[in-house]
Amino acid sequence: MAPGTLIFTGKDVSGEPNVSLMQFNANEVKEYHLKDKNPPAAHGDYVTWFDIRGVHDIELIEQIGKSFVIHPLVLEDILDIHQRPKFEDYENGFFITLRWLKCKKEPFELETEQVSMWVGQGFLLSFQELESDLFPSVRERINNPVSRIRQRGSDYLAYALLDTVVDHYYLALDEIEERIDQLEEEVLGDPGNDTKAGIHQLKVQSLQLRKSVAPLREAIARFSRAEHPYIQEATMVYVRDLFDHVVQIMDTIDTYRDMINGLYDLYLSEISFRMNNVMKVLTIISTIFIPLTFLAGIYGMNFEYMPELKWHYGYFGLWALMLAILVALVLLFRKQKWL
Amino acid sequence: MAPGTLIFTGKDVSGEPNVSLMQFNANEVKEYHLKDKNPPAAHGDYVTWFDIRGVHDIELIEQIGKSFVIHPLVLEDILDIHQRPKFEDYENGFFITLRWLKCKKEPFELETEQVSMWVGQGFLLSFQELESDLFPSVRERINNPVSRIRQRGSDYLAYALLDTVVDHYYLALDEIEERIDQLEEEVLGDPGNDTKAGIHQLKVQSLQLRKSVAPLREAIARFSRAEHPYIQEATMVYVRDLFDHVVQIMDTIDTYRDMINGLYDLYLSEISFRMNNVMKVLTIISTIFIPLTFLAGIYGMNFEYMPELKWHYGYFGLWALMLAILVALVLLFRKQKWL
Amino acid sequence: MAPGTLIFTGKDVSGEPNVSLMQFNANEVKEYHLKDKNPPAAHGDYVTWFDIRGVHDIELIEQIGKSFVIHPLVLEDILDIHQRPKFEDYENGFFITLRWLKCKKEPFELETEQVSMWVGQGFLLSFQELESDLFPSVRERINNPVSRIRQRGSDYLAYALLDTVVDHYYLALDEIEERIDQLEEEVLGDPGNDTKAGIHQLKVQSLQLRKSVAPLREAIARFSRAEHPYIQEATMVYVRDLFDHVVQIMDTIDTYRDMINGLYDLYLSEISFRMNNVMKVLTIISTIFIPLTFLAGIYGMNFEYMPELKWHYGYFGLWALMLAILVALVLLFRKQKWL
Amino acid sequence: MAPGTLIFTGKDVSGEPNVSLMQFNANEVKEYHLKDKNPPAAHGDYVTWFDIRGVHDIELIEQIGKSFVIHPLVLEDILDIHQRPKFEDYENGFFITLRWLKCKKEPFELETEQVSMWVGQGFLLSFQELESDLFPSVRERINNPVSRIRQRGSDYLAYALLDTVVDHYYLALDEIEERIDQLEEEVLGDPGNDTKAGIHQLKVQSLQLRKSVAPLREAIARFSRAEHPYIQEATMVYVRDLFDHVVQIMDTIDTYRDMINGLYDLYLSEISFRMNNVMKVLTIISTIFIPLTFLAGIYGMNFEYMPELKWHYGYFGLWALMLAILVALVLLFRKQKWL
Amino acid sequence: MAPGTLIFTGKDVSGEPNVSLMQFNANEVKEYHLKDKNPPAAHGDYVTWFDIRGVHDIELIEQIGKSFVIHPLVLEDILDIHQRPKFEDYENGFFITLRWLKCKKEPFELETEQVSMWVGQGFLLSFQELESDLFPSVRERINNPVSRIRQRGSDYLAYALLDTVVDHYYLALDEIEERIDQLEEEVLGDPGNDTKAGIHQLKVQSLQLRKSVAPLREAIARFSRAEHPYIQEATMVYVRDLFDHVVQIMDTIDTYRDMINGLYDLYLSEISFRMNNVMKVLTIISTIFIPLTFLAGIYGMNFEYMPELKWHYGYFGLWALMLAILVALVLLFRKQKWL
Repeated sequence: MAPGTLIFTGKDVSGEPNVSLMQFNANEVKEYHLKDKNPPAAHGDYVTWFDIRGVHDIELIEQIGKSFVIHPLVLEDILDIHQRPKFEDYENGFFITLRWLKCKKEPFELETEQVSMWVGQGFLLSFQELESDLFPSVRERINNPVSRIRQRGSDYLAYALLDTVVDHYYLALDEIEERIDQLEEEVLGDPGNDTKAGIHQLKVQSLQLRKSVAPLREAIARFSRAEHPYIQEATMVYVRDLFDHVVQIMDTIDTYRDMINGLYDLYLSEISFRMNNVMKVLTIISTIFIPLTFLAGIYGMNFEYMPELKWHYGYFGLWALMLAILVALVLLFRKQKWL
Repeated sequence: MAPGTLIFTGKDVSGEPNVSLMQFNANEVKEYHLKDKNPPAAHGDYVTWFDIRGVHDIELIEQIGKSFVIHPLVLEDILDIHQRPKFEDYENGFFITLRWLKCKKEPFELETEQVSMWVGQGFLLSFQELESDLFPSVRERINNPVSRIRQRGSDYLAYALLDTVVDHYYLALDEIEERIDQLEEEVLGDPGNDTKAGIHQLKVQSLQLRKSVAPLREAIARFSRAEHPYIQEATMVYVRDLFDHVVQIMDTIDTYRDMINGLYDLYLSEISFRMNNVMKVLTIISTIFIPLTFLAGIYGMNFEYMPELKWHYGYFGLWALMLAILVALVLLFRKQKWL
Repeated sequence: MAPGTLIFTGKDVSGEPNVSLMQFNANEVKEYHLKDKNPPAAHGDYVTWFDIRGVHDIELIEQIGKSFVIHPLVLEDILDIHQRPKFEDYENGFFITLRWLKCKKEPFELETEQVSMWVGQGFLLSFQELESDLFPSVRERINNPVSRIRQRGSDYLAYALLDTVVDHYYLALDEIEERIDQLEEEVLGDPGNDTKAGIHQLKVQSLQLRKSVAPLREAIARFSRAEHPYIQEATMVYVRDLFDHVVQIMDTIDTYRDMINGLYDLYLSEISFRMNNVMKVLTIISTIFIPLTFLAGIYGMNFEYMPELKWHYGYFGLWALMLAILVALVLLFRKQKWL
Repeated sequence: MAPGTLIFTGKDVSGEPNVSLMQFNANEVKEYHLKDKNPPAAHGDYVTWFDIRGVHDIELIEQIGKSFVIHPLVLEDILDIHQRPKFEDYENGFFITLRWLKCKKEPFELETEQVSMWVGQGFLLSFQELESDLFPSVRERINNPVSRIRQRGSDYLAYALLDTVVDHYYLALDEIEERIDQLEEEVLGDPGNDTKAGIHQLKVQSLQLRKSVAPLREAIARFSRAEHPYIQEATMVYVRDLFDHVVQIMDTIDTYRDMINGLYDLYLSEISFRMNNVMKVLTIISTIFIPLTFLAGIYGMNFEYMPELKWHYGYFGLWALMLAILVALVLLFRKQKWL
Repeated sequence: MAPGTLIFTGKDVSGEPNVSLMQFNANEVKEYHLKDKNPPAAHGDYVTWFDIRGVHDIELIEQIGKSFVIHPLVLEDILDIHQRPKFEDYENGFFITLRWLKCKKEPFELETEQVSMWVGQGFLLSFQELESDLFPSVRERINNPVSRIRQRGSDYLAYALLDTVVDHYYLALDEIEERIDQLEEEVLGDPGNDTKAGIHQLKVQSLQLRKSVAPLREAIARFSRAEHPYIQEATMVYVRDLFDHVVQIMDTIDTYRDMINGLYDLYLSEISFRMNNVMKVLTIISTIFIPLTFLAGIYGMNFEYMPELKWHYGYFGLWALMLAILVALVLLFRKQKWL
């Protein structure tokens, strides 16, 4: 395919995408929920936020791309939902794409949804992969007249959206930590085959999580160093704070990965420890009976001249001897700490 | 050998190489399929693309080198099909060499083919190791009058070829992921000796893949930072996008390598888990029979005075005792979770 | 939540925070212990140190933030007690947050407490997570009229507090080393299930310790390179010395982690060595008795014609034979170093 | 010892070193084989190459050092045959030392020989550790009037010698790859104790190889960036090409090391797989006989009233029962995939 | 403790420290061995070397610090014998601290002793932790009128001392290599429990060695880049050479660490190989006797009608059968390569 060809790489979705629009400044908030696909124009006195939920409608994306003069490669990235997180600045705006992280609990699974933003002078286009709204908390803050977001430009809005996305990573990390604790308890308690599969899956998932956060860190770092005319210095303090959060997330993931590896080693040694204990006990039982069985074999022999066989208490004497051997062996094994 | 000596390092190929030529600009496309080896000259009004398929004809390469004033070290690199991917700029053009990745399925195998390009003012020489055409899609786009490639110079053509090569890596990565999934299923299902060999081979192959992509990343990075008079700024956006793709490929390979290692560990623990289970069951069977056999031995003894032997129901009583011991042991082992 | 929203993330604490205040210069020290929450103002002729112990009172923090014109993000960081150590400079001061490390002995556990500082012109605000005073030694030095701290500004006071925190890391490291030695002794002596759990916990703790020291190193490095008007050059020598200490702590932690990993490997090999020894001895006992029992079985057979059975000393001869076999086998196993 | 003290650190060698001399320019080649140790002087119209084979004669080296004004540390490095590869530039010349790699086949072993060069204005001194000539191919090219080496200066001659050394690394790498393949075949076929020792040795050798190539890469990198008056720009293209080769060698060694580690893991799992198979079969045999032996024990008992013993076909019935048990167990084990 | 507080952190040492003094220039050497603690003053026409052996006398160090105007942090570092190697430059001199490495042989142990230097204009203060003189070879060279050290300043003297320290690392490395070889021989010959402990200790020691050399490399690197008025350019060539040595030492330690890890793996596989061999042989013996014992059991049964028992040669026939089974099994196990 030629580069810049627009293809939607997600699962087939029917239905029209959900386009909502907010225009606000310090004094006023206007909110539309558009069924017609013609987005109203941005306006110099307001910050205009177009939120497109569902990116499967290629024509719509193309039309938006033309209206706002967006580079075809950016449009391609918006539609390609397996895109690596990145930050790119163009002359007439900047582009950010990253992944929203969700954590399902039963069975434990990590899911991601792509979120992209194009930020221009006085407006912001956000593209969510699915129709469900990820940003109700931001809308709420916009509707609050005293909130900081009302005093600032589209760059701060971009930061607020990013911050919401990054905050959700912490929730997912908490779930992962809980899952690690749960698996550790299983390992030290009663590890089964499920435990092994659980650790293996968590390992694979943390690998994939790391793969998606590493470029995110890089993207936010670029954002925090960007010198774009549409980004105000006052916003930069917040972006650098955001960057610190992403670095902390990355560190935490690395620590979790080491913990999961440690957990796997612990599982292996636990399994082999239990197995060895079983084998040891069973082998000791065999070892105790072997000389006893030998003695029984001796007195089952048919030699004509075996004086012990004639003794009146020979049989009971043998029982006594066997008991003595049994006690001696058990004591010996105890002393050797084998039992 | 003196440096710059031209030696073809591939397998012996008979037959003449396949040289095809396209000249195009925004208005016109001319296509030749040359049997005579004299390549027509480049022309200022067109972008001229010489595509040489098969590099085993040293004389031809030497002649081309002289016509286009190419440095002998570049010619040596074109002929050496084990060349490390690289980007080099010279005064009168720039040189790129990289590897095309193919993935055979049964048996699973990764194969590569070297592709080199010399890009000069208004022309591009591409050298493919084998005769089969790797770039039909690019030819198609050139024949399409409204495609972007028709508006641009030889630098964009170079990008388009590189992009085609890199896009094929994604296909191979998908195959590898499928292979990992298939092996994981085998491991968790019914792992045999084939599984082990399969994981080992995939490990070696991913190592070699990494070895060839690492310098590719470096080469594309150099391309994306190059300040060469023949590379236009408008092309650079695309090259940087290409670089992002290569970085993503590299990340994916690293993730796959970690996954393959995890798979190997899983295989080992699975095998040892199964083996241990077998041993445990067998050992438990032995352990149950050992005291029973001991008892049978006792009553096979020939002591003159063994009162139990005279009891009328002694024999059946013993059977009852043995059954009781059997049940007790099984219950005990159950309770200990050994069975 | 909107960024800059003040939330206390620690455990619920009742009671008022403990605010103490010291004002000093080369000639004079004034010390207050304030029950009313209105902090007295900073004064140009003194260094004023406000020490707030307990940060659960959001209103107080907010009020302090307003009085000293502190950025809302800084206040948020002070309240978030899971904050990554960092150094940030603002126009009207600089901010440092880090973690105090404590080491509990029975059971062995590492605990941390967050300490934050805001350093402005002529004053320093320190925020301790808990109410117990971490800095009595610094107060003592301030009360000593000939100590260096009395001659210097708020930047040196900041250094003195940081230095106290970092010095406590050494104590914790000593505890860890002692714990490693203790576990090593256990491993080489009589390793039990506790040992394994102990090594695992130490591994996890050293991982978490590393996670908190790595950003500390970065923070102190930024401090040591900072060019802030409130930091004097004479203080910088001390900060660089502090940085050397943090680097040494980091190195030591890395060395400890490698040692703990080595210890775990040693534990595993020790366990498997012991287990193998038990199994070997038991197997050898079985192996010795097997041919003897076979012989007893032979002479327990009921064939009509078995000449040995009629021999007068057959029985005693067999005992002699068995003894000979026993001795031969033991000697053989000794020679093979199996016993 | 004081630095700059000249000590030969190699094995004792008797006999005089072999000093040969070539003087050439585009028109003329003069070759001497000097028995007297007085080297003829360099001459402005020629490139003069002094090739000293054998560096055990300290006096000779000292004398050469004085004639050509070479820094005592350089002389010390020439004599210390365990020197790390390096490139150093001085005002009156530059110094390169590196190691020639040889690969012995039966038994497989890697050997190195030190090669040092001092390059001044119009002359080059090369020092080979041993007497055998490593550079006959370079001499041949010098004797060829149309070769590039005849047109260039002493810097290109240095490059040509380095290139010859580096080319030999490829041969050794090929031998290593062959050895890896051979060991892999052994591992998958019939691994013995030799295989283990072979893999271990290859591991150690690849470690040592890596240790010697890493500084070589650094040295050639310095050469390729050097701005020395005696190095012409036209030579630099070749040195950068050489650097690419060294990087490729380094990559290949790293890949080989990973392959050798993978091979070792494969060996271990192969050994344990085979061992487990043996143990499993033997244990199954035991397990089958245990219930049969128990039954035989039962009917060897001497109870007075055991009705089965009186049955006419009791004995044959028991045989039938035992056969049935045998078949049932074998079928069961087959079904469980234990056999 | 306040920073800059002087505390000696080594073991209690009684007795006065040993202070010796040399003053020299190209013409003259004056040597004193001072019992009174008043060091004679430095003099512009000489290089004056104060060598303080034993740093437990805090008063002396304090007095020296005052006489030579040394920063209190430097004095603290001299007294803290667990100091990380470092290089620091001050306006009136520069400070170096590093560790002297000793290698005890029976039992194998690595020991270090701290050496610090303060280098000012025309004088050098060296502080050795213990009383025994580490630098007799340097004194000898100073007494030699033609040695280079007599022509140079205090900077070259500092280099000469550092070089002596670094040279001793090579001796220790040789001991380590010898120890590795000795342990490898043990592993491949007759590995015991001592071998395991030996490898473990060597591992820990190489970890600690690495920890102390890594900052040394950094310190010498800083020295080699320092632009201090008291360091002459001519000395710098030597310092850079010294840096190369430290890098080589670091590489060697890394290689040794990999070798020790490889050795440990080899030990583990060797132990498990031997154990497996023992178990295999013993299990095979059991397996051979099991069917034989079963047969003996069969003919020990008391069935009334067992025709074989009546056969005249039944007993001997059974012996023959058993022998045949024995031979058949041994041949089978041989064929399977189990024996």
